[in-house]
Amino acid sequence: MSPIPSSLRPFFTPAGVAVIGASATPGKLGYGVIANLIKSGYQGPIYPINPRADEILGLPAYPDISSAPDPVELAVIIIPAPAIPDALRACGQRGVRAAAILSGGFAEVGPEGEARQQEILDIARTYDMRLVGPNGVGVLNPHSGLNTTFIEQIPEPGDIAFLSQSGALGGALIDWARGQHIGLSYFASLGNAADVTETDLIQALADDPNTRVITAYIESIHDGPRFMATARQVAARTPIVALKVGGTQEGARAVASHTASIGGSDEAYGAAFKQTGVIRARSVQELFDTAIALAYQQPPAGLRVAILTNAGGPAAVAADALARNGLHAPEPDEDARQALRRALGPAPQLFNPIDMLGAASSPEYETAARILLQSDAYDAVLAILVPNTANDPVGVADALARASADAAKPIYACYMGDVSIREGRQHLHHHRIPVYDFPENAARAMANARRWQVVRESPPAAPPAPDLAPYMPFARAIEEMAAQGRETMGEVELYPLLEQAGFPLPPWHAAYAKAEAEAFARVYPGPFALKVLSPDILHKSDVGGVALNVTAKRVGKMYWQVQARVRRRARKAGLQGVIIQQMAQPGAEVIIGMSRDAVFGPMIMFGGGGVYVEALRDVSFRIAPIGEEDARAMIAETVAGRLLMRGARGRKPGDVDALARLIVQVAALALSAPQLGEFELNPVIVHPAGKGVTVVDARAALFRK
Amino acid sequence: MSPIPSSLRPFFTPAGVAVIGASATPGKLGYGVIANLIKSGYQGPIYPINPRADEILGLPAYPDISSAPDPVELAVIIIPAPAIPDALRACGQRGVRAAAILSGGFAEVGPEGEARQQEILDIARTYDMRLVGPNGVGVLNPHSGLNTTFIEQIPEPGDIAFLSQSGALGGALIDWARGQHIGLSYFASLGNAADVTETDLIQALADDPNTRVITAYIESIHDGPRFMATARQVAARTPIVALKVGGTQEGARAVASHTASIGGSDEAYGAAFKQTGVIRARSVQELFDTAIALAYQQPPAGLRVAILTNAGGPAAVAADALARNGLHAPEPDEDARQALRRALGPAPQLFNPIDMLGAASSPEYETAARILLQSDAYDAVLAILVPNTANDPVGVADALARASADAAKPIYACYMGDVSIREGRQHLHHHRIPVYDFPENAARAMANARRWQVVRESPPAAPPAPDLAPYMPFARAIEEMAAQGRETMGEVELYPLLEQAGFPLPPWHAAYAKAEAEAFARVYPGPFALKVLSPDILHKSDVGGVALNVTAKRVGKMYWQVQARVRRRARKAGLQGVIIQQMAQPGAEVIIGMSRDAVFGPMIMFGGGGVYVEALRDVSFRIAPIGEEDARAMIAETVAGRLLMRGARGRKPGDVDALARLIVQVAALALSAPQLGEFELNPVIVHPAGKGVTVVDARAALFRK
Repeated sequence: MSPIPSSLRPFFTPAGVAVIGASATPGKLGYGVIANLIKSGYQGPIYPINPRADEILGLPAYPDISSAPDPVELAVIIIPAPAIPDALRACGQRGVRAAAILSGGFAEVGPEGEARQQEILDIARTYDMRLVGPNGVGVLNPHSGLNTTFIEQIPEPGDIAFLSQSGALGGALIDWARGQHIGLSYFASLGNAADVTETDLIQALADDPNTRVITAYIESIHDGPRFMATARQVAARTPIVALKVGGTQEGARAVASHTASIGGSDEAYGAAFKQTGVIRARSVQELFDTAIALAYQQPPAGLRVAILTNAGGPAAVAADALARNGLHAPEPDEDARQALRRALGPAPQLFNPIDMLGAASSPEYETAARILLQSDAYDAVLAILVPNTANDPVGVADALARASADAAKPIYACYMGDVSIREGRQHLHHHRIPVYDFPENAARAMANARRWQVVRESPPAAPPAPDLAPYMPFARAIEEMAAQGRETMGEVELYPLLEQAGFPLPPWHAAYAKAEAEAFARVYPGPFALKVLSPDILHKSDVGGVALNVTAKRVGKMYWQVQARVRRRARKAGLQGVIIQQMAQPGAEVIIGMSRDAVFGPMIMFGGGGVYVEALRDVSFRIAPIGEEDARAMIAETVAGRLLMRGARGRKPGDVDALARLIVQVAALALSAPQLGEFELNPVIVHPAGKGVTVVDARAALFRK
Repeated sequence: MSPIPSSLRPFFTPAGVAVIGASATPGKLGYGVIANLIKSGYQGPIYPINPRADEILGLPAYPDISSAPDPVELAVIIIPAPAIPDALRACGQRGVRAAAILSGGFAEVGPEGEARQQEILDIARTYDMRLVGPNGVGVLNPHSGLNTTFIEQIPEPGDIAFLSQSGALGGALIDWARGQHIGLSYFASLGNAADVTETDLIQALADDPNTRVITAYIESIHDGPRFMATARQVAARTPIVALKVGGTQEGARAVASHTASIGGSDEAYGAAFKQTGVIRARSVQELFDTAIALAYQQPPAGLRVAILTNAGGPAAVAADALARNGLHAPEPDEDARQALRRALGPAPQLFNPIDMLGAASSPEYETAARILLQSDAYDAVLAILVPNTANDPVGVADALARASADAAKPIYACYMGDVSIREGRQHLHHHRIPVYDFPENAARAMANARRWQVVRESPPAAPPAPDLAPYMPFARAIEEMAAQGRETMGEVELYPLLEQAGFPLPPWHAAYAKAEAEAFARVYPGPFALKVLSPDILHKSDVGGVALNVTAKRVGKMYWQVQARVRRRARKAGLQGVIIQQMAQPGAEVIIGMSRDAVFGPMIMFGGGGVYVEALRDVSFRIAPIGEEDARAMIAETVAGRLLMRGARGRKPGDVDALARLIVQVAALALSAPQLGEFELNPVIVHPAGKGVTVVDARAALFRK
């Protein structure tokens, strides 16, 4: 691997660290940072900067950064926010390459802070400096002994990197890692991420020889498209595991008050992670648990897990949990069964769980684990131990390690309890066997490891660049309307533009008089749909404004009737006539939609159609651009799509090819017209394979600031 | 509360314990049990029974139970299975009241073991003895010092009872409880539960003055209806928290090989728990976490939670997790905000999370917790702490305890990390403040505590006993068919019986000739549905055997056409004509079904109709009997039902009253006819309110052995 990019290297292995705001008073942050740098074993020079001190913790102090001797590559800044711009300028003049700003008082505190954040960013750009923070706890590299945080102790060197938009979560992880003797390769607290973002560090860590897995706590991605491009390149070589918070209204409010982040929608994050191969953790514990699974062992090459246990209950819990996470626990094949029987005697149950009963010995665990790790029937082993007077958790840990050392497959452990298995757990961590408190946690982590193996085998490809030419007339029209300050557009404007862009609409006509509707019905075969034409009515069917299956001879009568019905329910609406439209041939109803996410841009939605199904949220999302393969995956992710693909009772398989092309068209349309805020084709009728799709209705809204 | 029922009292506070199979050899189970009885502080006499020993661990040994002096109320049996019947008979003759059988070799090992299990049960009944086990680890009462297990150390006395069909899970819980200094009131390992079941002990523990919460690990309930009746009585006074495993195919197989349990369906357990007020835990960790929430604190009186924290990230995680679990995190009201501002100064964010920043002191935690616990805006407080060099986890624990001591509302804590907060966590346990490793765990436990408060306020009522008289003709017909060995019945048999039982079917006729169909169409207004009449065809629409919306004049033609279509696709099917049926008025399609669960008996299903919706599993379940209130709750639990209740776009609210009555009818029908194995009304059309419902099609299958 190539090294860390040069502009970020001072955050990993700086030659010389100055601490601006160093303090000689124990208990002060400026004291703690100096103490940590010394204690963590940082080998370069440390320069406390403090105009009122001669020395701090035995190190000579300097009144300002300009008087500190060479080399100074990194400045750690912990002075009050108002003084920081000047200090940063001095750093720039002194030739400092990088600054970690721990102080708060920037974008997270309102407009004044926002201005100050912009100011320090401008200063950094002027002097070609990089910034981590402000409003974070800095960075920590156990391999180089760099620790700019006031987190009390440095974790052991290891191969898990953690990027956090919460310094505290980093503190919690580090405290946990120390207790479990888990090693970290790197920790960065991004704070407000004024300059260096999670994306920069993901890129840098992909090339860090010490890092085997990148974990991240994310409140908000700062540049959605760049994040996606970077993650897509990195995720297949170094796994990225992310916890995204703020998915609920309550969580989003908490995030906004914390690091001034404005998040995109949870669906958009889900789609972006899926499209780039980022593994999504659903809880802090799952983040930590998945990290050790990926750091310690090769991921499973398949879904088949052998459960080796000394306790039936926990094994039953594990079997349930594996199945709920998409993994399997098949019975051993005849070879494995015979080998196990020879090794273990008649007592154990060999169905999977392989239950060796309470007193199972370390040699039994080792032999059985070897057999299962060698068996063609399995891709991974989960070894469960419950402590009792007859067994030896430490001995079993060492036995599993011996079995693992010769194996090409991963093994995971679940040690249940507390006091009796603490030491055994530490041995497992030492041997790099991932160990979990509960079977459910193990199953989730194993499933995530398996997900990464799939990413590794089939790295997410960048979607083909769409040809936007067919959509340019549409895009220009939207741009003009936006320039006029318009927010919506009616069918009479929208439908011709869509036809021009190649969307499959049925024959239609805007009839401002009864005779026009009747004339249309003489040209096209029926039956017809009539929809009231009014700029004032959003949901036509709610006010009786739609008539379906109208025969040619009733078109004239229904022309009036539809408008009369609406008049009774919406007295003030302006009625202009009807849109008459040829009814589509039968097929399944689906919806394709687009909304514009604050972080990731145009997000495409596919789902089943009809009021009922909308309420069930049987939908799938992707960030544009997408290719037909993505569109097919979206279809396959929904129940509606799967029914279409295989054909439901009494109905042939639908034209999935045409549907996938239509989804891709919607994505391209969204990219062509940045002012298009929302767009929905609802319903789209999917005809049998080879017969295409029909867009029955469409709706568009311009982007609102 | 009244004391433990007398027949079970010897499993809690026996006067004298004999250990049959006691051993003088360290490492043997028969040695460990004696050692544990002594070490746990059991105050009554202990009699080792061993024909080849004079004394064991300083206690005089006896050759057999008959030679042991009085009192002997409980026998612990750990000899090989074949010797147990004789030993048990001797216990009975000696006047022993109760036996805990630890040995395996019974129902879990096949037919021979099953016979032996029946034999010991017969012996116990002959002598009026009660049995715990076999194939378990016995019982443990930290309050009386009784410990018949070979689990090494007894936990501290406390108020959490744990009933386990896995001895090992009990061992894990006890090990965990010891590490955390959590007290238990009672532990029973039920093993195969030949005699004493989880239901017996739930009843007993409801009257145990030491027990505040009953937790249970369940592989299979032994008597569904009795469990429901008991749990319904107990759950509102003593919370019952249950983890049920075996919900997946893999889990069910693991369970079957473990304690010979044959589980009912996961849906049936879910329904039974819901109907009786049992709180369902979804993981081992959630079981443990919920136990301390319910044992330590009053449950929240409402949904509003204040998050008090020294760290923004974990608080954002908590806000998300609370919302996902149905709890709220509203902002403080003006009173609380002002009080917090006065107490904490200008720095903290007061939106909720109340973020006091990293260095928050113990007095700040105490003052803020007091304000929030007293505020009318909140029902509970969640205090989060992440360790750093500036704070004091132990001091904060004690501060929270002081605030809690004066409060009428519950407080919960989340201490993140490991080494730096271990001691703080122990203080919290000591002060009976539930403490969790991660915000997500805290949120789940708090939501479960809130669920119990709802159960307490509105205890689940037993459903009214249904009047089965209207269903007796149906039941008798089913009984006759079952006696003839029949497994299915056709519409021509089923529909008249349903009409007789008061089910709302549309007019219909089985037409064996075209003229019959045409005659029907002259009497009733159209349109009509024609369905092929054939004993050989299960899914008529799959083979073109259904024609809908047939007008009167086309009935004759369609009579032949429907049969011709079927003939093309199903050459060998016997065709007898068609069923002609008046088409129902429009409305929403739903399904009502019944299946017979192995554990709980008739289970009623309600859900949305149509192929698509069936695939989405928008369904709700209850165990019969049910009342109209239950039926209404089922409707409200589904998206289809909620759309019916409020009326979806362009459609009026449906006749939910009539629908609820129909669901209750199905439940009563199922109870009346025990040989009815499966029953489905699909679809049922729900007309607008006041217009009733129509059963369009029905299907019944007799019970298969």
